[in-house]
Amino acid sequence: MRSWGYKKWKEGIYFTRFQTPRGFRDLVPNDARKYAFVEGRLRDIYAKWGYREVRTSMMDYYDVIRGGTGDWFADSLFKFQDSDGKLMSLRGEVTTQIARMLATNLKERRLFYISNCLKYIEDKALIGRESWQAGAELIGGDAVASDAESIALLVGALDALDLKGARVDVGSVQVFRILMSRFGIKDYERITRSVISKSADDLKNATDDKDAIDAFSYVMRKRGGPEVLDGLSEIAGGCMEEQRDYFRTLFRLLEAYGCADRVCVDLGTIREMKYYNGIVFEGYLSGFGMPVGGGGRYDCMMREFGLDGMTATGFALSVDLCVKALEARGFEFGERKVPLKVAYNQGKMGEAIRLAVSMRADGKNCTVDAARCESDMEVYGDSSGLPLEKGV
Amino acid sequence: MRSWGYKKWKEGIYFTRFQTPRGFRDLVPNDARKYAFVEGRLRDIYAKWGYREVRTSMMDYYDVIRGGTGDWFADSLFKFQDSDGKLMSLRGEVTTQIARMLATNLKERRLFYISNCLKYIEDKALIGRESWQAGAELIGGDAVASDAESIALLVGALDALDLKGARVDVGSVQVFRILMSRFGIKDYERITRSVISKSADDLKNATDDKDAIDAFSYVMRKRGGPEVLDGLSEIAGGCMEEQRDYFRTLFRLLEAYGCADRVCVDLGTIREMKYYNGIVFEGYLSGFGMPVGGGGRYDCMMREFGLDGMTATGFALSVDLCVKALEARGFEFGERKVPLKVAYNQGKMGEAIRLAVSMRADGKNCTVDAARCESDMEVYGDSSGLPLEKGV
Repeated sequence: MRSWGYKKWKEGIYFTRFQTPRGFRDLVPNDARKYAFVEGRLRDIYAKWGYREVRTSMMDYYDVIRGGTGDWFADSLFKFQDSDGKLMSLRGEVTTQIARMLATNLKERRLFYISNCLKYIEDKALIGRESWQAGAELIGGDAVASDAESIALLVGALDALDLKGARVDVGSVQVFRILMSRFGIKDYERITRSVISKSADDLKNATDDKDAIDAFSYVMRKRGGPEVLDGLSEIAGGCMEEQRDYFRTLFRLLEAYGCADRVCVDLGTIREMKYYNGIVFEGYLSGFGMPVGGGGRYDCMMREFGLDGMTATGFALSVDLCVKALEARGFEFGERKVPLKVAYNQGKMGEAIRLAVSMRADGKNCTVDAARCESDMEVYGDSSGLPLEKGV
Repeated sequence: MRSWGYKKWKEGIYFTRFQTPRGFRDLVPNDARKYAFVEGRLRDIYAKWGYREVRTSMMDYYDVIRGGTGDWFADSLFKFQDSDGKLMSLRGEVTTQIARMLATNLKERRLFYISNCLKYIEDKALIGRESWQAGAELIGGDAVASDAESIALLVGALDALDLKGARVDVGSVQVFRILMSRFGIKDYERITRSVISKSADDLKNATDDKDAIDAFSYVMRKRGGPEVLDGLSEIAGGCMEEQRDYFRTLFRLLEAYGCADRVCVDLGTIREMKYYNGIVFEGYLSGFGMPVGGGGRYDCMMREFGLDGMTATGFALSVDLCVKALEARGFEFGERKVPLKVAYNQGKMGEAIRLAVSMRADGKNCTVDAARCESDMEVYGDSSGLPLEKGV
């Protein structure tokens, strides 16, 4: 999409390149159509589950966003100083903004958004700084019921996109914290890094406690159904019983949704946002090396915004990655309605326009353009390139 | 939508307010739905006329944008310095970006976009710094045929929105420039300001030439059909003949489009962008004091981007103002499909979920939530608030 442009010296501006800045790009019609297709499917499925669309502000006060996401994410945002000196940041993700919206006067349980998000730091997975996210947030209500709905909706969304064979991994920030507390480990960053890297050596550097090493080795190794929590209970003792029951209920509900066989407990699932405090989950496609979406429970952020005791869970899907995954599978992004072409010889412009007006009134899409025609006017269907009607 | 938030001291951040920055706002579901309605109608009409949707980058090199819009507009943009020191600006309007896209490798004649645009300086008409624009650009081809199509499409778009009684005023930057050259006037800013203010005194300060004053007085006073140019020809002499013929042809084509009676020549129509070089036009609604959209011919900008000899015309509609105008008329923004509600008593969660799954498979929109029910489960239709089916 980018190329070296025309060099020109004009009014003191030397245009060496007409490209977009690093990490940004335009979507030409064939690309924009793919995005619209994916977004349309997601819009439909979110609406079917009773979610309502919102659009959040492109800009927010930096402190408000940082209060939700934590410093690590906030560091990656585009920041501006406003004329009154206040520091603002461009929308880098939407969940925090939705919590902010709820903290004012919005009373809705189910919300979704389809928005572009900007980060100063290039996202290596997307090879871009502007990305499109389609997320759904579920506010209030019973925690495990909401978590099950959110996971089932993520599976439903990937199915709606014909991304067959999608699966979801579920972990838990809470399980991690309970284990840390149980074994007196303080350094969350270090222990999560060792679990992410799945390195036994890193783990040994993070703690000397043999039982802790056993427990976290189990966490990084073991995958399966809710019985994974049974095994952890045996290693870590009674502190894990509540979590074990939670995961059992979660899977019982996922069975009711008909998607339990698509969901896998992987306690090594870690999400970057600081605001998660319960389960976290990620959607994967076969043959696609990175998650196409993910989310989790973030009651703590609601508290951060003054909404004490409010539960919240949700996820975001990367529209960019969904488009890429569909492209990789050779997916046909719906049929393009190619407009008919009304072509006319010089001097027949008025008649051609009148024909186009009447065709559009009949519900047809068409363009009207001067061209070399054998007769005065011709109507072409684009797919064949041959005149459909001659000398109309 | 904004309110004073909850005061909280936490981790060193003092959240005095959870509001959005000045000039920014969130669209809650009821607002977002209005925007989606307007955009959907515009998307349909643009597609019907054979235009294809693009999405431009949220960010561009500042010099590239300034090269198209000129300093006045460029001054109003949000600007950043990238890590490599280059100055970037946030998307403030889209036409210049489309010219940039065409300057690389895009080969399309008809393009449209529906995009948010950001300006550092608050737009008083919109009372905002983030606005939504839906524009259509027509590249190449015969100038007068393209101008007629663009104006007719603007009228068609306003009609598609049920904004009855919309009209379009057409002026011409070229007519202005020819008159200035004819009378040896150099200060374009000053003469346009006097025409905008419709002030005879300002005009007298801008020039001493009695014939020039006559001509520009005529420009600021006279409205009507293409015969307005006949009158100007008489005052300004032969230099206006080409323009007179142009306007005659333009109106002949607008007649073919069936909208000539909705278009009025008003040579006092001025647009802020530097890039216009031919006709300029604005769409007005009765009882609405400002234009809801506008555009014009910008071949000069195409030259700026190295596309010498390429013609281009187009317009943008303000989605915000269209929504406001429809609200002011008490318009119903389509019917909201309120989802059905599956409510269940504690313990019946699994059954309720199974019911919701089967309802969604039947094409129904529904939510599933715990509630106090007389029977184990109930299905409510939201509009009545009464149970539709009891004890399912």
